[in-house]
Amino acid sequence: MEAKRSLLAIFLLLSFLSISTATSTRKTRTRNPCKSMVFYFHDIIYNGHNAKNATSAIVGSPQWGNKTILTGKNHFGDLVVFDDPITLDNNLHSKPVGRAQGFYIYDKKDIFTAWLGFSFVFNSTQNKGSINFAGADPLMNQTRDISVIGGTGDFLMARGVATLMTDAFEGEVYFRLRTDINLYECW
Amino acid sequence: MEAKRSLLAIFLLLSFLSISTATSTRKTRTRNPCKSMVFYFHDIIYNGHNAKNATSAIVGSPQWGNKTILTGKNHFGDLVVFDDPITLDNNLHSKPVGRAQGFYIYDKKDIFTAWLGFSFVFNSTQNKGSINFAGADPLMNQTRDISVIGGTGDFLMARGVATLMTDAFEGEVYFRLRTDINLYECW
Amino acid sequence: MEAKRSLLAIFLLLSFLSISTATSTRKTRTRNPCKSMVFYFHDIIYNGHNAKNATSAIVGSPQWGNKTILTGKNHFGDLVVFDDPITLDNNLHSKPVGRAQGFYIYDKKDIFTAWLGFSFVFNSTQNKGSINFAGADPLMNQTRDISVIGGTGDFLMARGVATLMTDAFEGEVYFRLRTDINLYECW
Repeated sequence: MEAKRSLLAIFLLLSFLSISTATSTRKTRTRNPCKSMVFYFHDIIYNGHNAKNATSAIVGSPQWGNKTILTGKNHFGDLVVFDDPITLDNNLHSKPVGRAQGFYIYDKKDIFTAWLGFSFVFNSTQNKGSINFAGADPLMNQTRDISVIGGTGDFLMARGVATLMTDAFEGEVYFRLRTDINLYECW
Repeated sequence: MEAKRSLLAIFLLLSFLSISTATSTRKTRTRNPCKSMVFYFHDIIYNGHNAKNATSAIVGSPQWGNKTILTGKNHFGDLVVFDDPITLDNNLHSKPVGRAQGFYIYDKKDIFTAWLGFSFVFNSTQNKGSINFAGADPLMNQTRDISVIGGTGDFLMARGVATLMTDAFEGEVYFRLRTDINLYECW
Repeated sequence: MEAKRSLLAIFLLLSFLSISTATSTRKTRTRNPCKSMVFYFHDIIYNGHNAKNATSAIVGSPQWGNKTILTGKNHFGDLVVFDDPITLDNNLHSKPVGRAQGFYIYDKKDIFTAWLGFSFVFNSTQNKGSINFAGADPLMNQTRDISVIGGTGDFLMARGVATLMTDAFEGEVYFRLRTDINLYECW
């Protein structure tokens, strides 16, 4: 009788144990970000007359293009290198907390769309290190998701998603992107 | 006697439990993909005469190159931007389920080899979101592996491998790649 | 009495089991690399006169640049494609164990800085497969970290960090990078 009761206790305990194991496994799969941040970056493209202020320049273009004017066909084929200031608010003249460095390529003939490969390089009191991004940016959508493919320093081994929003677009010379970063893998 | 039997039962149960724990741990490290997919994409390179049909264009080339003919030396240095239709079978005229967007660079003087950075951007009833790829593509091998470095939407946080196979190659204007995607990290 | 003793045994065993489970979970979060490697790679840029020996070439440049001389403004906007030999020591003439293939873009006007997207492609008795890298390379820092964003073959699903050090820099034609790779995710 006692022995039977103890066996029952074992089963109950084991059941409880397997339930709590399952729960903790589920926890590691939670979709809550381990880190969330919002930044803005500012791109001023070289147009032949703004060498001092420009933060980016066309360095590749298709046969019908050139290096000082974004091409027709929704800029298809234009490759732009950039070193853009990152700010915490949407003011171009706020103190930068880092630089967005890399390239984008306009890659569609019938609508504005780009492919991005770049890094946020931080060197502020709050953040040191870099976050690396890659992905497709269908510019005409209000929000676009690209991948956080890695990081260094404070962001070592980071993975996650960055949501881009065009916060301003002035002629074809200046644009500002709001970037909501959600990391789902942190160290 | 009863108590001894119950102790024996405990040990057996615990052994079983630890075995099943070990098994489930091993399962998370299994090399079975959590998702497998096969797609084809089709690249028609701009040659100066096919502006309407072309899905890609040379936008960078070495000193000895130009923007309408792939260069000698196995195209070394040619940078191509593309927006290629993705289909479920090997027919260029099948209804596209998305677009392959990004770039490739021929990067070897003595044999055809490229480096790829691109996304599959889906917008079908079956798949929404994007898969991001990067890696070396030694074109002369029958199969070549590149990395799935991230994803968005249905493919959020995806990682894995894509195996490329040249399914067709017509002159230097059209090629078709079969892409076998195996994801080993899914959400 | 016997039954009570057996219940105590259960509790002790279960406690031990849950402790060991917790420990093994913590182990998977250790910051010790699962694989560490050191390589050198060697870049000889095409300057119009070294077609035979060159391992890289400028294929994109801003309006003020050209394809045979790196531009002023710290080479801002120059896009270089490379296929560089990888060696185990710092001797350009050592037997290569693979090739570093991809591109770099100088992306800052006021200091030497680049953005890298490339692969180590191995084909030696020791290593087969590839490691894919991306990230910002602020060249003037003694050490710079970029991300290992994926791998294939022996390095399937690899993630980690590569620390770059400029081991030699001769004029604007030759440089050699030491690369310390630390993988924190291995298969």
